[in-house]
Formats: sequence, C-alpha cells, structure tokens
Amino acid sequence: MKVKEIMDKEFIAVSPDIDIVEASIKMESHKKFTTPVLDDEKHLIGWITSLDVTRGLRDNHKKVKEIMHSKDDIVHVHENDAARLAVLAASKHKVVSIPVLDREDKVVGVIRTFDIVETLSKLYEIKVSKIFEAMVDELKGVTWDELMEASAIVTKRETGKRVTAKDYEQRIKNSTFGEAIWATGGLEKFFVGLIAIGELVIARKVAKARK
Amino acid sequence: MKVKEIMDKEFIAVSPDIDIVEASIKMESHKKFTTPVLDDEKHLIGWITSLDVTRGLRDNHKKVKEIMHSKDDIVHVHENDAARLAVLAASKHKVVSIPVLDREDKVVGVIRTFDIVETLSKLYEIKVSKIFEAMVDELKGVTWDELMEASAIVTKRETGKRVTAKDYEQRIKNSTFGEAIWATGGLEKFFVGLIAIGELVIARKVAKARK
Repeated sequence: MKVKEIMDKEFIAVSPDIDIVEASIKMESHKKFTTPVLDDEKHLIGWITSLDVTRGLRDNHKKVKEIMHSKDDIVHVHENDAARLAVLAASKHKVVSIPVLDREDKVVGVIRTFDIVETLSKLYEIKVSKIFEAMVDELKGVTWDELMEASAIVTKRETGKRVTAKDYEQRIKNSTFGEAIWATGGLEKFFVGLIAIGELVIARKVAKARK
Repeated sequence: MKVKEIMDKEFIAVSPDIDIVEASIKMESHKKFTTPVLDDEKHLIGWITSLDVTRGLRDNHKKVKEIMHSKDDIVHVHENDAARLAVLAASKHKVVSIPVLDREDKVVGVIRTFDIVETLSKLYEIKVSKIFEAMVDELKGVTWDELMEASAIVTKRETGKRVTAKDYEQRIKNSTFGEAIWATGGLEKFFVGLIAIGELVIARKVAKARK
C-alpha cells in the first residue's frame, strides 16, 4: 500500500502572504490543527499549526510567513512511498499530520494520524473465522467440522478448559484478529496456536487415509 | 491491553476560570493541540482545542469556560477499557486525543493518536523470521533447514519464481510482518501461505517417519 492510497486529498492550504486571522478562520472552519503553506505552484514552502497561530495572534504578528516553520523543519513523505514509512514517521516524530509531495515537490495530500489508525485497525477487525475459512480452503480434504474439532482439542490442551467444537466455532465468529492477539498474548503465540491446530488436523487426515 | 497501558499520564489540564491567554501559553509550551478542562477535584468538565483558542482570541473571549466544549460533547474512555475501544473511537470520531477517566470520573490520562499508531505499528514491525522461529519450535522434530526448504518449494509453486532455501531465509530475516502482509495481498493470504508451508513440512515429516 502506498502513501497516496491513505492520504487525504481534500486538504486545506494557505499562502505565506495571507493574514494569520484569515488562516485561523480557514483552519477552524475545516477543523484542521495544521496546514501546509504553499507558493502559487503548490510547492511546499512551510507549515503552520494552530499553536503557531495562537502565539501569532497574541504577539500581534500579521502574515503567515512570520509564523510558519520552514520546509526543512517539516516531516514529509512522497506519494509513492510505502504507507509504512508514513506510519513510522507519525509514530517517531509524534505529529498529527504529514504533507505528501509528488515528484515535483508539489503538495498532493496530507496524511493524518487518525487515517493511519483507521487503516491499521481495519486489519485488527478481521474476524478470526475468516482466517479459518482460508485455512479450510487451503487444507484440501479437511472439512470445516474436522477443523473445529481439532481446534477444540488444541484449546483444551493449551488452556486446560474443555470447549466443544460448536463453542469454538461461535467464539471465532464473534472475535476479531485484534482480540485474539491480545487474548493469546501476542502475534507469535496466536500463530503457534494455529500451527498446532493445522498439525493436528493434518495428522488426523493422514491417519484416516491409511485406514 | 488496557487503555491505561497506552495513555499519556503526563498530560496538561486547565481550570475553567483561567484566562484563555494563559491556556494558550500552556498548550504552546507543551505542544498540545487539546487539553481537558478540570474542576478542583480533577473531574472532567470540558475540553478545549487550539482551534477554540484561536477563535476565542479573535472574538475577545476571556475565560476558558466561555470557549470550552461541555463534557457531554467529548469522546472519552475509561482506564480499564480495552485499548481496542480507544483505537476504534479515534478512528471513528477522527480526533487526535481522548481523555481517560477513572471510576470516579477523574481524568487520569490522555490517549493520543500517535501513541495508538506506535502501539499498532509495533505489531507490524515484528520480523517474519520470528514467526518462523515460533513455527519450528511448535513443529517438534522439524528442523529449521527443512522448514526453509519447504518454504522455498511453496514460494516456487505460488509465484512461479525459483528461490533457494537460503534466499528465503535471508528474505524473512529482513522483512517484517507488515511488509509481508502488503506483499502477499492481505492477512488471509499471508496465513494461507504459512499453512501451505506447514502442510508440506508435516507431509515430509510423516513420509520420513514411514521409511
């Protein structure tokens, strides 16, 4: 996934020569804490936040260019960069938004942390049953019921608690990948559980074939 | 994971009766776009953003209580809520920070979207080789080399491209779970690939045992 797939194209921008009062009204009406400062060809030349504006209003500054951060001080990414880079930049620099540039250094979008959160959390919200459906498709010759049976046995082995195949099926229909990871104690443990299930179901398939 | 494990305990707060000029200086010096408004017992009574402050400064408001949003209009979470709830709230309401309350409705922290991004992205940054190490531990009797051999065969089968066991080992040492998901086309496909590898390695183990 590329930066351009998660960026907000409906961003606001201001010119360095407008009054900061005008910039503040624009930022308030669009509910944006930050905005890029662009020249007439949409090249990035600076960046202001609403905190620069409060300071500017108090100190009686007039123009955006008097309060803006210069381009060199701004974290930015390119539209064809991997989305992962924007995620790492937001996390490392603790910023709420990052301007996105094209090849000519023109601003074509803004990445916002809540959009990143949305993208990342979609992965977590996948139902665990979807993963089991993919598993049964791949393990040709194994039925869904055999998979649930094996899962119940592995759960009993690992937690000591008895669970029926039906209970297990209900559980994975209602739980998400995110919940499963927190419940099992991490990604690796979640995988190990799946592998144990896969191993048991294959062993049973092999045993059945021998009969 | 609970909300209290990812919240920022070093948050700032303001009283409803202070001057907005004072609030703006506090927010600027701590680089916070938002702050809870608390009574003397630290109960949440309101919320202001730096955009409320710019509007307040322009309109000549004096006190924080004149510009704050009331408690009822604010997205908030409790310290013992699942962290997932805060993630979903940030994503749904497109906010940059969320106040965290204890049982007595006192503010004990603030969740910020970039902290959520950091927590979520840590999962993505796990090296794929860690997952294979967990796999080889679980598949007792299968060696690391046998696992890499099976992985190379599955890769050839699925992509048509020849890859040696050594190439494969190098690849998973350098790539992360996040990269692997984007590369394979999603979480389910990534799992299916792992299952195919597990299936092959178990089939080979069974064949070896029969000899």
